[in-house]
Amino acid sequence: MTSLITLTTDFGLRDPFVGIMKGVILSINPEARIVDLTHQVESFDVVDGMLALVQSYPYFPPQTIHVVVVDPGVGSERRPILVVTPAHRFVGPDNGVFSLVYDREPSSEVRHVTAERYFRKPVSQTFHGRDVFAPVAAWLSKGLAPETFGGLITDYVRVAVAKPERVSPSVIRGEVLRVDKFGNLITNFRPAHLPQQGSFRFVVNQNRITQLVSNYAEGRGNGAIAIVGSTGLVEIAACQASAAKVLGAGKGTEIILEIEGDAAKADLR
Amino acid sequence: MTSLITLTTDFGLRDPFVGIMKGVILSINPEARIVDLTHQVESFDVVDGMLALVQSYPYFPPQTIHVVVVDPGVGSERRPILVVTPAHRFVGPDNGVFSLVYDREPSSEVRHVTAERYFRKPVSQTFHGRDVFAPVAAWLSKGLAPETFGGLITDYVRVAVAKPERVSPSVIRGEVLRVDKFGNLITNFRPAHLPQQGSFRFVVNQNRITQLVSNYAEGRGNGAIAIVGSTGLVEIAACQASAAKVLGAGKGTEIILEIEGDAAKADLR
Amino acid sequence: MTSLITLTTDFGLRDPFVGIMKGVILSINPEARIVDLTHQVESFDVVDGMLALVQSYPYFPPQTIHVVVVDPGVGSERRPILVVTPAHRFVGPDNGVFSLVYDREPSSEVRHVTAERYFRKPVSQTFHGRDVFAPVAAWLSKGLAPETFGGLITDYVRVAVAKPERVSPSVIRGEVLRVDKFGNLITNFRPAHLPQQGSFRFVVNQNRITQLVSNYAEGRGNGAIAIVGSTGLVEIAACQASAAKVLGAGKGTEIILEIEGDAAKADLR
Repeated sequence: MTSLITLTTDFGLRDPFVGIMKGVILSINPEARIVDLTHQVESFDVVDGMLALVQSYPYFPPQTIHVVVVDPGVGSERRPILVVTPAHRFVGPDNGVFSLVYDREPSSEVRHVTAERYFRKPVSQTFHGRDVFAPVAAWLSKGLAPETFGGLITDYVRVAVAKPERVSPSVIRGEVLRVDKFGNLITNFRPAHLPQQGSFRFVVNQNRITQLVSNYAEGRGNGAIAIVGSTGLVEIAACQASAAKVLGAGKGTEIILEIEGDAAKADLR
Repeated sequence: MTSLITLTTDFGLRDPFVGIMKGVILSINPEARIVDLTHQVESFDVVDGMLALVQSYPYFPPQTIHVVVVDPGVGSERRPILVVTPAHRFVGPDNGVFSLVYDREPSSEVRHVTAERYFRKPVSQTFHGRDVFAPVAAWLSKGLAPETFGGLITDYVRVAVAKPERVSPSVIRGEVLRVDKFGNLITNFRPAHLPQQGSFRFVVNQNRITQLVSNYAEGRGNGAIAIVGSTGLVEIAACQASAAKVLGAGKGTEIILEIEGDAAKADLR
Repeated sequence: MTSLITLTTDFGLRDPFVGIMKGVILSINPEARIVDLTHQVESFDVVDGMLALVQSYPYFPPQTIHVVVVDPGVGSERRPILVVTPAHRFVGPDNGVFSLVYDREPSSEVRHVTAERYFRKPVSQTFHGRDVFAPVAAWLSKGLAPETFGGLITDYVRVAVAKPERVSPSVIRGEVLRVDKFGNLITNFRPAHLPQQGSFRFVVNQNRITQLVSNYAEGRGNGAIAIVGSTGLVEIAACQASAAKVLGAGKGTEIILEIEGDAAKADLR
């Protein structure tokens, strides 16, 4: 039994909110090990938090507990949930933040956490990270069975992540999901959208990107390039520069993929 | 015996100062566990560091050692101190950063740390976090008795945190102590300042806030609202928006509380 | 055998890259302990990363493994390397980021890491922190011998850090290497550049700094001062203010040292 817990929040690092959650966890399970994924999820942005989570959790050991607190509905009727997959466990609010986990892990079991004896009392209206999610994760890390925390539910909330859509046989419209620290544009295109044969171009704010490279260094001096990033998604990058700045692009910017040849047959997933 | 140590500093995360302190601690006590509260205390702002600390330390296990390095007087004659309460230990400079600990823990014992054999040599003039406070905390975490580090003192420094003051029977003037990451205004009002019966309003830069809600979601679409936050203090918030931006307010902004009914009898603490 | 690993990157804290590296490490060695030095090295700035590293590593216990990922050439032919000194181990790209380690530790042994069985597969073109450096550090922390990872090389890359140069017997020209969080200017002058006797002045953007103080507090109300900082380098500071702002200086700003007396004989190292 491992006792590894990861934390993903939109709390930032200026306030001591994250440290407080760690204090609560270690008060319950002094053996727990805690790793921060990020605390700079955009405030209240459930999709942004979900992208950080799904980019990360496969790299953690089996039975790791992933706590996500991006929780605009804190204090309302939204439910706390516990998601169990064959290899991982997730704790957070039922606001769709685990939607991509449900997609990727068809055998996910979702439980409404109702066992208030594992909450920190009194439960505040504003900080369930401290009073609900941290203590539930800590008790779970001590080996309590998931069913201890509440019953299975099937009506959990899902949110949709924008997927590329075909505008014509040769044109697919996608968008920028996230800009990373280096200014790389993480798009919602997957390698399968690109033609196996024949050429293509991405158009971003009237700039054309025609080159798909296999590493950043290869793109040196070539302006913006496309690359399959560590997320498995197509990224638009500029070697040693910020593609976001160079192309004037940001989250939500439209990306057009124009393709030639046999690419029209690619499925859109 | 626990060996949990928390760190609170104004060092930021860009320089490796915090990592260096951890290296010093782990060189002395490889079993120590270290948790960051925050390293983004406003530079040299002793009160800001104190607020982060007192918001956090009650959530940690007994015998946790809390190190605070907000230390504008580093290298001068200001003393290093060790504060012992029934449940916690604190290490830092004698510049008032523990004032609210003294208020809350009347049995606090304060020691002037004079046992230089536990310092890292040579002691620099500029980085006592590394040379004094980290090693003292590390040795303390190995089980050394507090009296080993120096004798009791009673003339330790206190700083005052602004408290609301009554301007007339129905008007109390307070202020914003801190703005959190979400733009919530943490005021120095406590729930006891609000009338049990009868209405009230907060006035911030000519904006009136009349609604006290029990959770952020309840305030949706209602403009700014008042809420008792996780600190136990009244916060002015705007649901899914920054109250600081909406109200043009920041640290030190005056908050007027106008009350009706029996509220005049509330004590001002 | 210790299993302490430090991480220094230019990944920032907004993306979960650092958390992912920790997941990879803990999947291989659940006992590893991980300390962050900084993840806010300036993007792609090998010298900036090196300064953070050399400022920090001497404070860690023997056999600590220091991983540095500032890697503009990721995915190209640049080699992954492992550097072994009597007291420390270093893992990172062969782009010069360990140059100051080679200077300070003449007995450094440098190995080209070629044992791909210790990499995470498939090795991406864009994230060797995850696929190469983290797993190599983790396997090393489990006690594998350095020679397991690859053979010795001598043609490893070095980069130069600017050193002060003498312009005339009484004038030395240096520069700002880095500005820390407090706005202190970390110069490339060492105490040995200053005269033992006789006076001197630093000139920064036509401002003269004549006072060498032993602590920041001593400089109170005195405008900018010089001080030997925790790095062992001369820093230009302004008490409780940002010298960078006060003097309009930043990384790369020229610093002129004008000296009198016997100082002309000081060696320039």
